[in-house]
Formats: sequence, C-alpha cells, structure tokens
Amino acid sequence: MNKPLILITNDDGYEAAGIQALARSVATFSEVYIVAPDGPRSGAAASITCNIPVSYRKLTTTSPNQHLYTSTGTPVDCVKLAWEQILPRRPDLILSGINQGDNASISIHYSGTMGAVIEGCMKGIPSLGISLYLPRGQRYEDHPVCPEALQALNTLCQRILSDGLPQDVCLNINFPNRPSFQGWRLCRQARGLWSAEWATASNPHGEQSFWLTGHFTDLEPEATDTDFAALRNGFASIVPIHIDMTAHENMNQIQLLLSPHSL
Amino acid sequence: MNKPLILITNDDGYEAAGIQALARSVATFSEVYIVAPDGPRSGAAASITCNIPVSYRKLTTTSPNQHLYTSTGTPVDCVKLAWEQILPRRPDLILSGINQGDNASISIHYSGTMGAVIEGCMKGIPSLGISLYLPRGQRYEDHPVCPEALQALNTLCQRILSDGLPQDVCLNINFPNRPSFQGWRLCRQARGLWSAEWATASNPHGEQSFWLTGHFTDLEPEATDTDFAALRNGFASIVPIHIDMTAHENMNQIQLLLSPHSL
Repeated sequence: MNKPLILITNDDGYEAAGIQALARSVATFSEVYIVAPDGPRSGAAASITCNIPVSYRKLTTTSPNQHLYTSTGTPVDCVKLAWEQILPRRPDLILSGINQGDNASISIHYSGTMGAVIEGCMKGIPSLGISLYLPRGQRYEDHPVCPEALQALNTLCQRILSDGLPQDVCLNINFPNRPSFQGWRLCRQARGLWSAEWATASNPHGEQSFWLTGHFTDLEPEATDTDFAALRNGFASIVPIHIDMTAHENMNQIQLLLSPHSL
Repeated sequence: MNKPLILITNDDGYEAAGIQALARSVATFSEVYIVAPDGPRSGAAASITCNIPVSYRKLTTTSPNQHLYTSTGTPVDCVKLAWEQILPRRPDLILSGINQGDNASISIHYSGTMGAVIEGCMKGIPSLGISLYLPRGQRYEDHPVCPEALQALNTLCQRILSDGLPQDVCLNINFPNRPSFQGWRLCRQARGLWSAEWATASNPHGEQSFWLTGHFTDLEPEATDTDFAALRNGFASIVPIHIDMTAHENMNQIQLLLSPHSL
C-alpha cells in the first residue's frame, strides 16, 4: 500500500527550523512534499500574488521520503502551485508550520501559516496549521517542540488520515513553550486585541517610517476554554476553524438593520 | 454636532475609481479620511507588512470633507496606520472599497478589501467591505455602481452609525453589475471552488513562470440564500462576517478525534 502523501508548507520559508522538524517527523510514516516560500512570509495571511508572476524550483534533499520545492510566492501560492503543478497526485493531508511564534486568537487572520491551511481546506483536503508559542524575539531552534509533542502530532495526523475532518473545517494547533507534552485541549479562538502597533524610525533620506510591532491583550483572561487559556496552562491548543465566516447567529440582528421602516 | 468620521481604504489603491466614488458619496454626510495603498494590493487578504518598514504621506485634495493619505503598506497596514498615526479621533465607521470585482463566497479569504474590514472589526469599529461584481477584465469605471445603490449604501451606513453592529461582526457587501438597484439580500457565504489557477508563461531568461488566474465554481448553484444567488438575481448581497472563525458546531466531532482510545 502507498504511504500517505503529505504536503507541507509554512510562512517562515523552507529553511526554517520548524518546517524541517515537522517534515522529519511526519516522513516516518508518509511521503513528504515540501513546497514552501523561498524566504520569510510572516503576516502573509491568505494573500495571493496577483500582479506579478511566481515561479518555483526543485531543490535536492538527502532526507528520506522528502521532496523539496521552493517558490517565490506566498504560502497560499505554494499550496496552489503544489496542487496543480508539482504533486504527483491529490495530497492526503496538508500541514503548515511549525511556525516560529503562535497563531492563537485573532492572529489567525494575519497568519500565513493559517492562510495556507485555509487554502488546503478550501480544496477539500484535511489541513492543519501548527505553531509554537515563543517569547518575543526567541527563535524556534532555541525552544523546539519536544519529541513527545511531535509524536502526539504524528498520532493525530494518522487519525485524521484515517477519519478525515468535517467538511470545510481545518485545525489551528498551537504548542506551548514547554519541554514536555501535557496533552491537547480542544478550544475556541480567544477574543484579543493588538495595540501600540507601530515603532517609528527614520531612514537615511530623512523620512519617517514605521515598523509593525504591537502588544497583544487577551480580552478573556478568565476564560478556560480558549486557545490562550490552554497555552497559559501548558497545553497544546486545537481550534477547529470553519472557512464559512458567516455570522449565522447574528442574522436576525442584521435583518433588523435592513427592515423596510429604516431603509 | 460633529459629523461622523469615516475611514475609507481599499485594496485597489487610492487612485481607483471605486474608492473615489465611495468617498464622494459618503462625504455628503460625514468627514472622510481616505488612507489607502499607493497602488494595487489585490489579493492582499489580511496580510501585514512585517519585514520592512512602511510609510505614509498626505496628499492634497480639493474634494469637500475629504482628507487623503496613501501608504506603502497593505490595506490592513492602512487601517493600523490610520488608527494610531493619522486619524484625529476614533473613527465612527470604516469602509473598504468599492472593490473592482466581487468578494463573494470564499474569495473573502483572499480579499484585501475584506482584510481591512476584518481589521476594523477587530478594533471594535463598525466596518463594511463593498465590492462590485464585474465580468472578468472589466473595470469599475465601465460599469460603476449606480447612484441609487450608492444612496441605499449611504442610508445603510447612517443606520449603522446610529445602531452599530453586533460585537465582532462586520459586513461583506457585494453589488451586482446592474444599472439599477433592486434591493438588499441578507445572505450566507456560498461554498465555492477555484480551479485552473495557473497560466504558464516564460520570461526572457528562459525560466517558466506562473500567473495566477482561475475559474470559480459556485458549489451551491441551486441555493437561494447565498451571496452568489443574490448577485445572480440582481440583488446586492450582505453577508455578516464573524471574526471568530471557530467551528463551534463541529466541536464534538473534533473531540472524538482526540478521545483517549485514539491518542
């Protein structure tokens, strides 16, 4: 029987320690195609390259069960290129990560890691984004995901390869920054807020410019069922994500806005 | 009493006909700050600029009740810059558009127009994305949103300025390509699929490159309650969008994946 085919991408670029750790780990039970950006694409969200052409190339790798491609595009472009141009067949699973830094709470909206996952889900493939919570400025290699957690992830991937995921649902997984694996927690996305988002700088031309930075506030610090609560308590968070963003529960409120007496 | 302060951005750039039409229309009842990208950012999604600094500058405008700024960043960067660096006070409403091309169905995930709207919503401001369905290759100025539809949008904006939107909910509005306004339809996001997404090309260096293109398929052509159904029938679609992407209805299914007998 053929091994499962797993497509791996990320938004930190193909050289990042996190994607290499992930690929090594799942290559123990699968055939891995890495199709990843040629450099960092942090904050790429689900962006696509519309105004310039993109390209990709195959790199040689000596790692067993691995095929390595890099692209000039975004993480979503990588999934789209893999899908139509690179993969020998439909992938059984799409993984994105392991991202250097968490993608919990509202950061999912900015995340190139999760952009690729949403793309995979739109194509009907079980797709998981995996990120590592890190103190600001820390690198993946300084606090790598522990072997026990990688093994738990392998087990989860094998279960999903067998059972699938619900239609239009993908997973946003975040590991805490811990030396051992305490277990999974199924969570909802925490409400959060980014503030103080710009650091001013001047350039040699005397113009003021702005670097994106910011302070994250968990707006539900007392909640126990959010992804940030899980991370705070040392658990790996799993948030099932639906690609239908419709606010189904708010339909009636919005209908009132449109009622004839007002419009 | 002060006029409401409306922040307008887009992903087609500040020179686009759609943002100018929108600004002229709402400036009849508000003070408008345009903070928009300095050129096209189609497909920017909710991406942010992490690896280089961004800048902005004020342009002169003779339009009444309008202030015009452009930025080197993404639509989301524009909202963040406006929020902390440009606006004299907290905006009362954030509008993004009018986009040249629809952002219905799953295209919301790629949309820079809607990325800015999600950013505004995350900051707690009522935020609306407005897009125009166009046959491929057509420009906004060839089929502009009709005056009657712009008036209906003004009325909706004024109602929202008065009543607000539910917490964490923003609106994805798409106008059909029609010479008259047939009315609003409150909708859910249609299920859809993009395919045939790459056009191959070679460059002068003999390398193969790929332009993003694609064919959209509405996976629910018989549905009557989706945004695409509304557009097909000549109505303007309004989809309320929740920034919490958690698949709350699928929690139990995912919990089974994590049950002790399996992991």
